[in-house]
Amino acid sequence: MSTDLYVEVLRFYAGQMALLDSLDLEGYADTFTEDGVTHHVHRGQKLEGRGALLEHARAALPRYREVVVRHWNDNYRIEQGDDGALTVAYGSLVTLTDKEGQVRFESTYAVTDVLVRVDGRLRTRSRTLLRDRPAAA
Amino acid sequence: MSTDLYVEVLRFYAGQMALLDSLDLEGYADTFTEDGVTHHVHRGQKLEGRGALLEHARAALPRYREVVVRHWNDNYRIEQGDDGALTVAYGSLVTLTDKEGQVRFESTYAVTDVLVRVDGRLRTRSRTLLRDRPAAA
Amino acid sequence: MSTDLYVEVLRFYAGQMALLDSLDLEGYADTFTEDGVTHHVHRGQKLEGRGALLEHARAALPRYREVVVRHWNDNYRIEQGDDGALTVAYGSLVTLTDKEGQVRFESTYAVTDVLVRVDGRLRTRSRTLLRDRPAAA
Repeated sequence: MSTDLYVEVLRFYAGQMALLDSLDLEGYADTFTEDGVTHHVHRGQKLEGRGALLEHARAALPRYREVVVRHWNDNYRIEQGDDGALTVAYGSLVTLTDKEGQVRFESTYAVTDVLVRVDGRLRTRSRTLLRDRPAAA
Repeated sequence: MSTDLYVEVLRFYAGQMALLDSLDLEGYADTFTEDGVTHHVHRGQKLEGRGALLEHARAALPRYREVVVRHWNDNYRIEQGDDGALTVAYGSLVTLTDKEGQVRFESTYAVTDVLVRVDGRLRTRSRTLLRDRPAAA
Repeated sequence: MSTDLYVEVLRFYAGQMALLDSLDLEGYADTFTEDGVTHHVHRGQKLEGRGALLEHARAALPRYREVVVRHWNDNYRIEQGDDGALTVAYGSLVTLTDKEGQVRFESTYAVTDVLVRVDGRLRTRSRTLLRDRPAAA
């Protein structure tokens, strides 16, 4: 994989996470393909299509009036398949900052995405989120 | 924007944050332009010029004898204006580690900088820090 | 240093940290040179050679059945010596997530590595970890 493509993927995530964290839900949904799937494995929930994603995100909005959410991702490993699709694996740490500036943390997550290029732009075709769980759990 | 420029900006921040976190205040101030402005919006404070920045930072030093501060930035979005200046937006998480190794967190922040090139080197011309604040606050 | 090399180093760490955090200890040890040294300065411990590293890591495994560990590194500063070896300095934040999804933090660290190229692949020849300690401590 070229340096250009690796950095393009870093920039894609910077933009996508900023849309999510600023609660620009339409903008966030638009970074997915029309049929994009978000799979929250730990709660057995699969959102199929941009519409389902958006509906789910909107329903969660009231919860995000009391805290600012930020996603801190790291360690992006990227592989390109024969069809050009990119499989991207990374860790995600989620902070919740309240009105006093207190920072709390959600669990950490392992995320695996598939990105494809549509009309020249990268988009997420699937996102699989696995909440971190110790071996002994 | 080219991959080269995006990565140059990532490297600029890695260096600048390392100077700040190691309390090399002169080195940190030197990464700003002579007239560089730091604007802490949440406390209505505007430090105009490298001298004011340095004076403010030196006054805060005693506070940093008891903890090690580290800045963890993420999701750098960069846009280049017609004049070549770069507007860089990112999130910042600040840790404070005490002598027992306990980690505390300051609030999270949204930061927007303007970078310009002076004698071939990138420097910060302005930094605007906005403490994260929930919609309901 | 070229953009290509800087990004190659970012990708090296993404891969190495993912091996460590997924407890693939053989895979992790294999990212070191055969004689690679890990120096935990804060506890005066020097592990010399891949075998010693692996033995030490295996002994720590039981501790990691109860929590998921993740390393969040930032601010990579890289310098290349005349012999081609790369000195890489960065900050490291370590999270421990338990079975309830509660996130705890180890101390923050300053890490300095030397990377060399062996058979075309980057490997760690030495890693020096310094636990953050305030000036007044």
